[in-house]
Amino acid sequence: MRQSKLFTKTRREAPADEVAKNAQLLIRAGYIHKEMAGVYAYLPLGLRVVERIKQIVREEMNKIDGQEIIMTALQRKELWEVTDRWNDKNVDVWFKSQLKSGAEVGLGWSHEEPITDMMKHFIASYRDLPAYVYQFQTKLRNELRAKSGIMRGREFIMKDMYSYSVSEEEHQNFYGKTMEAYKRVFERIGLGDRTFPTFASGGAFTQFSHEFQTLCDAGEDVIYLHRGKGQAINKEVLESGMEQMGVSRDELEEVRAAEVGNIFSFGDVKSKQLGLYFRDEDGVEKPVILGSYGIGITRLMGTIVEIFSDGKGLVWPESVAPFKYHLVSLGREGDDISKLAESVYAELVEADVEVLYDDRDLRAGEKFAESDLLGMPHRIVVGKDAVATGVFEVVRRVTGAVEKKSHAEILAS
Amino acid sequence: MRQSKLFTKTRREAPADEVAKNAQLLIRAGYIHKEMAGVYAYLPLGLRVVERIKQIVREEMNKIDGQEIIMTALQRKELWEVTDRWNDKNVDVWFKSQLKSGAEVGLGWSHEEPITDMMKHFIASYRDLPAYVYQFQTKLRNELRAKSGIMRGREFIMKDMYSYSVSEEEHQNFYGKTMEAYKRVFERIGLGDRTFPTFASGGAFTQFSHEFQTLCDAGEDVIYLHRGKGQAINKEVLESGMEQMGVSRDELEEVRAAEVGNIFSFGDVKSKQLGLYFRDEDGVEKPVILGSYGIGITRLMGTIVEIFSDGKGLVWPESVAPFKYHLVSLGREGDDISKLAESVYAELVEADVEVLYDDRDLRAGEKFAESDLLGMPHRIVVGKDAVATGVFEVVRRVTGAVEKKSHAEILAS
Repeated sequence: MRQSKLFTKTRREAPADEVAKNAQLLIRAGYIHKEMAGVYAYLPLGLRVVERIKQIVREEMNKIDGQEIIMTALQRKELWEVTDRWNDKNVDVWFKSQLKSGAEVGLGWSHEEPITDMMKHFIASYRDLPAYVYQFQTKLRNELRAKSGIMRGREFIMKDMYSYSVSEEEHQNFYGKTMEAYKRVFERIGLGDRTFPTFASGGAFTQFSHEFQTLCDAGEDVIYLHRGKGQAINKEVLESGMEQMGVSRDELEEVRAAEVGNIFSFGDVKSKQLGLYFRDEDGVEKPVILGSYGIGITRLMGTIVEIFSDGKGLVWPESVAPFKYHLVSLGREGDDISKLAESVYAELVEADVEVLYDDRDLRAGEKFAESDLLGMPHRIVVGKDAVATGVFEVVRRVTGAVEKKSHAEILAS
Repeated sequence: MRQSKLFTKTRREAPADEVAKNAQLLIRAGYIHKEMAGVYAYLPLGLRVVERIKQIVREEMNKIDGQEIIMTALQRKELWEVTDRWNDKNVDVWFKSQLKSGAEVGLGWSHEEPITDMMKHFIASYRDLPAYVYQFQTKLRNELRAKSGIMRGREFIMKDMYSYSVSEEEHQNFYGKTMEAYKRVFERIGLGDRTFPTFASGGAFTQFSHEFQTLCDAGEDVIYLHRGKGQAINKEVLESGMEQMGVSRDELEEVRAAEVGNIFSFGDVKSKQLGLYFRDEDGVEKPVILGSYGIGITRLMGTIVEIFSDGKGLVWPESVAPFKYHLVSLGREGDDISKLAESVYAELVEADVEVLYDDRDLRAGEKFAESDLLGMPHRIVVGKDAVATGVFEVVRRVTGAVEKKSHAEILAS
């Protein structure tokens, strides 16, 4: 993509009311736009990051037989009353509105209820199970405060998956598979070495649920980490978690972290409430066993920014970067440098390499500063030297290391 | 995809309260789920159709330099008050809600205001123009009645694009390009020969806007079509439209149609209201010229269903079908037929051909009826004959025509 055509511009300053580093940087770099506190639009570069994260998650969910759907934002009051989660005393993040008829409707902050209710159309027998269903949904949550940028929004994108199993054993088997799938997601996104499965409170049915917590100073949670075991415990279940892990308090590190995923067993509680039953091989009616599995897509994006950015700006891991390369021409329209840059751009596009091409007439210093702010993994510089020698400077954003590469080497990499 | 794994099932009957043919068929085939009147979830097969339509639209918008973003559902009251479109008297489709602070917020039913307001951060000079920005957004509209299935929803997906130009001339140039892009979209989707640019009322700035109307008995509009010119006139501007086209009433056919797209010139009205100005080459401050360009993605899907379905069920044009092929095995697990079907399936998957594979143990009649209901363009039947001769029956859904094809011919097609 030509930067001369990109409608977004970088800014020197973030809005004065924006206190979160992730949003400050993303706004300055033109990746997102703040509509109101906790509510952000995603602009061309930001949307590309969102879509890359989604695609990684999608691939891993498909690998464990997840089937993608998209539920609705509008929610029926009557359905949520069945599970006693319509009441603002029980769920304090509802946005509610009204149909013209006067009937109250809610805006989806979670989707266990409607998906489970819908599954009654598709599940009658053990032959219809197991079923694994997921979506990428824009969730609306009426948070009292929203000061963490895209790490806790009033409007945000979440992947939520739901599993429907015949038995606790089948459920546990999938629970384990999802744990592994989640690990692969965080590995691929570049957060594998600092993201840990974490015991958290389990609700009515099980003692524990699992969170995936990424070590991050801007995270809202405090967890207790056992580095040797690669596992952690959430503050609220510290005592029982230590017992479960067989460790003592002094083996654990108290660290700040962001909850980027969670896995939850509902057992048969919700199925009984909502009436989701199946007939087993002997014709006996039983409630379906339910699990839920979340990954905060935009929170993950914010966490990546918080962790990898530096004084100069954003630093994207290659797997989620909007473009792998930032091709920066130091020429002026029509000169030899510019002609060379144009031909390299054409070749990269032809070879299906994702490249942002700074083809604008600006000073080199300005271009480099902006390139650092935008944070593509590799910068290819086209200047006088490249014209003279056919060798390009390639700068790695994360380390600043400079390599000299020929035309052919760039195309092959 | 293996049908044995697909969690959705077909149904003999649509819900009693569903009166629209498009929703009846899509629900019976398991493509969508009705959450409430005018509010539908998209299940695996349905989501695939939505994504295919989106991808065709995306490619055509990118070709005319559109840049994809995603705005927010939550809307600021203050912004919409500026253009006097917050008031329920002026806009009667708002869903409104409240932040915890008590401040009113709206749910986006259109996005001219927030996008135009946002563009103030990015447009200052003529050098920043033109800019073309689009999104696929879930719009919420509080319709009094919702009886047209996915053709008029309270929650639906729309592509909306906005153009920002320095002059009326530049604007008209892009307006024309978008007309052509829209024609390509409807061609590719299979509706080219029955979709017509249609004069409609233009609002404050221009005499006319353009709708794209698809001939369809279930459409809500009545238009006056001149087949020779390939153009139509909306009822509300019939007189002035005939003048513009230089035709008389008796040259026009009165037909029912569905509005699948529209193109609208705002001139400088909205830019002045919202304060979007630029400096021209002489440093003179001028309002930006604005246009808006919509395509109803889910309405388009509903229109396709209304037009192409038959007594047996859905009939998808190849460009938007969830899968190109429906591979139907008439074998039982482990027999020769089933083994052959498995190997054909493996080969098609290997060759990246999109195929739904009916690998279930069901009677042939039941499988064929369901295959007709699901509506993939081509059905490959694997039965005794195929085992004996190596030649497969391939049935075209739209005509019912049967061709005999060898293994190699299927893979090559």
